[in-house]
Amino acid sequence: MEAAGDKAPLTDPASFRHWTDEKFRFSDTDMVGHVNNAVYATLLESGRVSFLYEPERPLRPPGHDFVIVRLVIDFRAEAHYPGKVRIGTRLIALGGRSFTLGQGIFDEGGASIATGESVLVLIDHESRRAVPLPGPLRERLQAL
Amino acid sequence: MEAAGDKAPLTDPASFRHWTDEKFRFSDTDMVGHVNNAVYATLLESGRVSFLYEPERPLRPPGHDFVIVRLVIDFRAEAHYPGKVRIGTRLIALGGRSFTLGQGIFDEGGASIATGESVLVLIDHESRRAVPLPGPLRERLQAL
Amino acid sequence: MEAAGDKAPLTDPASFRHWTDEKFRFSDTDMVGHVNNAVYATLLESGRVSFLYEPERPLRPPGHDFVIVRLVIDFRAEAHYPGKVRIGTRLIALGGRSFTLGQGIFDEGGASIATGESVLVLIDHESRRAVPLPGPLRERLQAL
Amino acid sequence: MEAAGDKAPLTDPASFRHWTDEKFRFSDTDMVGHVNNAVYATLLESGRVSFLYEPERPLRPPGHDFVIVRLVIDFRAEAHYPGKVRIGTRLIALGGRSFTLGQGIFDEGGASIATGESVLVLIDHESRRAVPLPGPLRERLQAL
Repeated sequence: MEAAGDKAPLTDPASFRHWTDEKFRFSDTDMVGHVNNAVYATLLESGRVSFLYEPERPLRPPGHDFVIVRLVIDFRAEAHYPGKVRIGTRLIALGGRSFTLGQGIFDEGGASIATGESVLVLIDHESRRAVPLPGPLRERLQAL
Repeated sequence: MEAAGDKAPLTDPASFRHWTDEKFRFSDTDMVGHVNNAVYATLLESGRVSFLYEPERPLRPPGHDFVIVRLVIDFRAEAHYPGKVRIGTRLIALGGRSFTLGQGIFDEGGASIATGESVLVLIDHESRRAVPLPGPLRERLQAL
Repeated sequence: MEAAGDKAPLTDPASFRHWTDEKFRFSDTDMVGHVNNAVYATLLESGRVSFLYEPERPLRPPGHDFVIVRLVIDFRAEAHYPGKVRIGTRLIALGGRSFTLGQGIFDEGGASIATGESVLVLIDHESRRAVPLPGPLRERLQAL
Repeated sequence: MEAAGDKAPLTDPASFRHWTDEKFRFSDTDMVGHVNNAVYATLLESGRVSFLYEPERPLRPPGHDFVIVRLVIDFRAEAHYPGKVRIGTRLIALGGRSFTLGQGIFDEGGASIATGESVLVLIDHESRRAVPLPGPLRERLQAL
């Protein structure tokens, strides 16, 4: 996978331009007393969907869907209810058949509570099979 | 709404013939230490969908969807992880434009931890508007 | 249960002073394509917890917990992702051993997508048994 | 991190002895029509908690908690409601301050729909700080 040239750590809020705001819900907590770890996957998804489907700069080629094939979450701090978080999302790698989004979840004080990497592919909506990333999509991703 | 003649309490497991088995997940708990109350809505939905869409006796007329318009949950006992529950579902009222399902959630010892009532209508898939319940659907519901 | 004198419909945003903002997440949707109905229970809980545990005017007597014994949700409109909602919460009934919160969920245009009523009791934290509502709590609830 | 000597692929059901059964819920689906990807994190957590807290062979030293610091999920196939899955969990690496559980999620036909790796540490319950893995815990983990 060819490098996208963006090597700033995902714990650095200054490395992100795309942001999604989220707020913890009471049901996000678990019996340990903190925000359940699977909620981080949900928050990263919120940021990812917001990044991929932003109406102002559509990325998805007609007749195709983005599908996640790998998710890595590094849990850096416990989070508690109530609280708000910001999720930063940016492209960190771009290949011929997949691309990787890097994400950071930051608390209200700006501290990184988790970082994530998502490898995505493009599939044909009908056949559900992965296809090479079209040139225009690659260009739009690189321009972000 | 015309009565369906079924007046057994929803806390009585013997009043149900349709059952759905569910199991608590760790993420179902909340910071109080018990199963979060909104999970009961999810469990009742699991039982309801299983009852309405059972492949052996399809209830849904083509081109239509069942939609819930009112949900009542009576919380009778706290539940804890790990644990399994059974959800009983049956028709308790049938009207011209809506019907009501009564449900009971029972723990592994057979105790009622919650009961629920769901009022459902039938909508046209395209217009999203409620329609009168067709005769054949009413007959199938009454036969259950 | 003695009436609280507040009879405005829960579909009227002007009837609420306490508000909680929430935002739909992608995972709130279900295969029908809309926000899953059990998510409404989670949103109502977010508003309820925010109302009951607001740090500026603590309602909970030490050593006690609020527990929901009945939840009624009236679903008034389908909701879709992405989107934001506001949840209004207010006291609608106050009795000797329980009180009822009325809630409205409103979309970004101010339309009511659901209303809810929650009956709550106060339990002793250790015995998990309901106790009569103490006078000071009743006075603080009535003052809201 | 010292290798645990277990190199069978996580897509091989025969490589697991510890199993957890789970069942999809209607609310696990999303507007794409399949089981939402964050649900996989919840299912892996169910298997992990079941493995770590099995009452017959307690692993957790008193006064300590297991905390996940990294989760990797490889999504191998879409899953649909209704359906059941089995989650296999086993130790795949054991170090001085952390250990790694490997997991496989298999559908009713035995096909791998996802695999996961979770890096866990042990923290002191009070200080919330990671501690070296005690010898007896390491021995019990290795014996599994």
